[in-house]
Amino acid sequence: MSNTFGNRFRLTTYGESHGLAVGGIIDGCPARQQLDMEAIRTDLARRRNGAARQEEDEVEWMSGLKDGITLGTPIAFCIRNKNTRPEDYDMLVDCYRPGHADYTWQQKYGIHDHRGGGRASARETVARVVAGAVAKQVIAPVEIHAEVAELGAENDGDTRGGIVSCRITGLPAGVGDPVFEKLNARLAQAMMTIPSAMGFEMGVGFAAAAMKGSEYIDRWNADGSTKTNHCGGVQGGISNGMPVEFRVAFHPVPTLPQPVECLTRDGKLRTLTIGGRHDRCQVLRATVIVEAMAALVIADFLV
Amino acid sequence: MSNTFGNRFRLTTYGESHGLAVGGIIDGCPARQQLDMEAIRTDLARRRNGAARQEEDEVEWMSGLKDGITLGTPIAFCIRNKNTRPEDYDMLVDCYRPGHADYTWQQKYGIHDHRGGGRASARETVARVVAGAVAKQVIAPVEIHAEVAELGAENDGDTRGGIVSCRITGLPAGVGDPVFEKLNARLAQAMMTIPSAMGFEMGVGFAAAAMKGSEYIDRWNADGSTKTNHCGGVQGGISNGMPVEFRVAFHPVPTLPQPVECLTRDGKLRTLTIGGRHDRCQVLRATVIVEAMAALVIADFLV
Amino acid sequence: MSNTFGNRFRLTTYGESHGLAVGGIIDGCPARQQLDMEAIRTDLARRRNGAARQEEDEVEWMSGLKDGITLGTPIAFCIRNKNTRPEDYDMLVDCYRPGHADYTWQQKYGIHDHRGGGRASARETVARVVAGAVAKQVIAPVEIHAEVAELGAENDGDTRGGIVSCRITGLPAGVGDPVFEKLNARLAQAMMTIPSAMGFEMGVGFAAAAMKGSEYIDRWNADGSTKTNHCGGVQGGISNGMPVEFRVAFHPVPTLPQPVECLTRDGKLRTLTIGGRHDRCQVLRATVIVEAMAALVIADFLV
Amino acid sequence: MSNTFGNRFRLTTYGESHGLAVGGIIDGCPARQQLDMEAIRTDLARRRNGAARQEEDEVEWMSGLKDGITLGTPIAFCIRNKNTRPEDYDMLVDCYRPGHADYTWQQKYGIHDHRGGGRASARETVARVVAGAVAKQVIAPVEIHAEVAELGAENDGDTRGGIVSCRITGLPAGVGDPVFEKLNARLAQAMMTIPSAMGFEMGVGFAAAAMKGSEYIDRWNADGSTKTNHCGGVQGGISNGMPVEFRVAFHPVPTLPQPVECLTRDGKLRTLTIGGRHDRCQVLRATVIVEAMAALVIADFLV
Repeated sequence: MSNTFGNRFRLTTYGESHGLAVGGIIDGCPARQQLDMEAIRTDLARRRNGAARQEEDEVEWMSGLKDGITLGTPIAFCIRNKNTRPEDYDMLVDCYRPGHADYTWQQKYGIHDHRGGGRASARETVARVVAGAVAKQVIAPVEIHAEVAELGAENDGDTRGGIVSCRITGLPAGVGDPVFEKLNARLAQAMMTIPSAMGFEMGVGFAAAAMKGSEYIDRWNADGSTKTNHCGGVQGGISNGMPVEFRVAFHPVPTLPQPVECLTRDGKLRTLTIGGRHDRCQVLRATVIVEAMAALVIADFLV
Repeated sequence: MSNTFGNRFRLTTYGESHGLAVGGIIDGCPARQQLDMEAIRTDLARRRNGAARQEEDEVEWMSGLKDGITLGTPIAFCIRNKNTRPEDYDMLVDCYRPGHADYTWQQKYGIHDHRGGGRASARETVARVVAGAVAKQVIAPVEIHAEVAELGAENDGDTRGGIVSCRITGLPAGVGDPVFEKLNARLAQAMMTIPSAMGFEMGVGFAAAAMKGSEYIDRWNADGSTKTNHCGGVQGGISNGMPVEFRVAFHPVPTLPQPVECLTRDGKLRTLTIGGRHDRCQVLRATVIVEAMAALVIADFLV
Repeated sequence: MSNTFGNRFRLTTYGESHGLAVGGIIDGCPARQQLDMEAIRTDLARRRNGAARQEEDEVEWMSGLKDGITLGTPIAFCIRNKNTRPEDYDMLVDCYRPGHADYTWQQKYGIHDHRGGGRASARETVARVVAGAVAKQVIAPVEIHAEVAELGAENDGDTRGGIVSCRITGLPAGVGDPVFEKLNARLAQAMMTIPSAMGFEMGVGFAAAAMKGSEYIDRWNADGSTKTNHCGGVQGGISNGMPVEFRVAFHPVPTLPQPVECLTRDGKLRTLTIGGRHDRCQVLRATVIVEAMAALVIADFLV
Repeated sequence: MSNTFGNRFRLTTYGESHGLAVGGIIDGCPARQQLDMEAIRTDLARRRNGAARQEEDEVEWMSGLKDGITLGTPIAFCIRNKNTRPEDYDMLVDCYRPGHADYTWQQKYGIHDHRGGGRASARETVARVVAGAVAKQVIAPVEIHAEVAELGAENDGDTRGGIVSCRITGLPAGVGDPVFEKLNARLAQAMMTIPSAMGFEMGVGFAAAAMKGSEYIDRWNADGSTKTNHCGGVQGGISNGMPVEFRVAFHPVPTLPQPVECLTRDGKLRTLTIGGRHDRCQVLRATVIVEAMAALVIADFLV
């Protein structure tokens, strides 16, 4: 079940980076929702922003819509991989890059598509952005906004990571489930499924560990809101009506411009310059993916 | 489904803090496993360590075992709440403490058990520790060890939080699922379900955001291990054979020794000294809960 | 996940026939529902009616209720096995009865509790009846009524089966899901999980196979009801507002009063008179179990 | 979750009868399986056999394969709807046929695709047949064979139903789960999801209700097989090593050649001759769909 996210509003995705297409099926989307296709295209453009592999992501809608209105049936969509250069990866047959999933996939499945990361590629996130853009429309007027909070330093010959912060507004109190399906726990899982994510924190997050209790607790206003929002808008796994706030840390792009030592299948180290087209920094692009995953989480609780 | 954790090795828990009992059902535990009951008692004692409410947690096993050997059928267990003092909470009827889930539960359900936090109480974690202790035996020889990494400063009249680090050793490469059920994402969800958890990070975590790519990537040894373990033992959601390492941040205990302003149901602020027995710091106790949740995640992938 | 039924209104059960207890956890029951405990006792008495093993089923409610009102938290309950006579089964160690699950459990798990059928015993259905009685209250004013439609002939030295018919009234049109979670498909699964169930049919059922299309189709009244109800109240997996009607066939009790040949673990045939207390016919008792499972299905769609 | 079948070997389908395409995603298919594409085409041809709407079903494989070998990643496939005549259905806007799901879908979703049954059309089963053909290859050497057991009488101006029998051979003892995921219960659900299915029975099925216990029970051979197979190869929800045998009843095609009274949205009865291309009998075509669903059930237990 590793390719399905959500219980009620469910996304199932498919696709390898250099295969025929990537896409997905959204199941559980309410009927009679007029979809704003332009908003979906805008989110896809944000994902491409600054991306090394510039290709127009043209969405083909296979089912679930009639005249742009949802039918309540599964919404299937598909984006063709048009601009592939699989020959860039010929050198990587039976050769595992450091900082990538080549080795672990091979260990798990005994086979992997070496071309551009296969299914472990960031290309897989296109389907998340499409479904997230649909989810955003489903959960309106709840709004989700993510932005770059910190960027790693960088000199010319290297790559960098950073931190994305995200804020969900308009969510009423009472959303989320206690115990194992806490809103913050579902957000944590969702964010850590994004390639390169290394950490997740709600509200003041790790800084809370050094605070005194009297500093930490969010004091009441008489209307049920709080004077501070250290907890990030969630208490006991359930939204409290304040903005839901969290941050996600991303490690630097693991494909370096300079040559790196790779591990071959027969246990040798070989120094290679990795081909393909790779970003120096994926943090800006990650903002729309963070929003998409947050929208999927919220839609799953609200539909 | 909020009270069930796991897909194959599943724990479903129940119980309010001042109700009759807390307990759970483990479904999916392999048959013919001889359980070490002493190890389970040891973990329960670790959870009580320094706890304000000292009560022997006596586990009653209702099903699933014959002569201490698992039958493959559901293992149901129950721990009676013996040492309750519900009258300590009389003042909290229709009164919501800051930093607690009283308000959000009331918003969600329109009713909540005000006695000792009800189901939102840390008392609920007893069932996790029992199931986690079973899971540890199921996943052997994989081992899980958590410890306090950082403790917040504290003066006499306050409470404090801290950070727990955890290390899973003996896990072979190839465990975890790509995309939405990544090992790191499942760990993140699991940890963020623990009461008071505020953040989760794998390996170097948030520090990765400031590193250069050439610093960050873990370089190969010829045997498939790596010279560093910045990623925390997981690549593309799948274990790489290195120790799995992560950290969890906890906020300070929200029940302060001094009086605090509570919100009443009819929108008034009232200053109260909260009764009941409350810890000043829960981080030491949290280590065994972190281990338990990690064991549930690993068992879910391995059975 | 074999011991959990339902997606939204979920029952997880546990317990061996001659173990300490049988019981379950209901997750997803709406909050603020006043439970009628007398109705639950009545259904339990119907299940015992004519049962060979007469024991008062005293339900202990471990959690989820306060003053008999549901909290929205998991409702755990437990019925002790008081009247066990495990010594009746001593002869059955490593010996498999015909028509029972002794052999298949041994094949699957490599171990089984030979006392009274263990978890495969009809004793397991007590937990279903409790949860079903709760579900009936949740789905009111929808009503479920099952009765014996046919009883097998029987002479003194034998056992018999029969057919139970069930009717669900008050269910509005639009309940059920298309494709894989059709209302009729969920009912079929639910009924076939009842011990001894051999067949399931909606409406006219198997008789439909011999009808002409012009005979079979249910013709409209102008108000959306139909002049006949051959389909059993479900079209395309979704209720149409007519009564939902189905039938379940049960094979005769497989424990005969006369001696039978059993298979031993080492491949010998041995003629034994089976001890324990066994019914000659379970069809009357099955009516309340059919109702319980139907109620769980309907509650799962309605909550 | 209504469009997903299975827990481990999962099929999610999409597509309306007269939309762009029907298709699905198989998640959980083991890696390194060479797929026999000819076998898949053969099953698709069996489904078309005698079908009123003759169109070549050309499968486009979007992901999950490399050189016809499974990668362990989701296998997405798509069949374009080439031969649609939506204008045949213009008369059915806001008009509900008897014996069809038009009315119930409208009640549930407040919208439905009136062209050719939309998602409730038998066209949806194409995706099941593709996935079933893959599943058959995964479960080999287990074999599944379905055939027409009974056909309804028919004169020229009418439609007819019938009964399909199915036999699964090569399945070892020990497959299936007790209690709620019994092999027979999963088969029952699977079969009742097929359009027009009215009943399901294991082994001797409904006839068991009239048998005496001494006639019914299957007597042992010393090797663990039984002299008869009345139970249909399943005891306590788990296979016993004998062939798994069951039957499925189908009602006659509800679209009659003669005019029928339809219900309009505003509560009027209108006599119409239904356009579109419709079969007089779907039972022969149903055999391969029965096999496909059985294969999905078995694969779900075996992977």
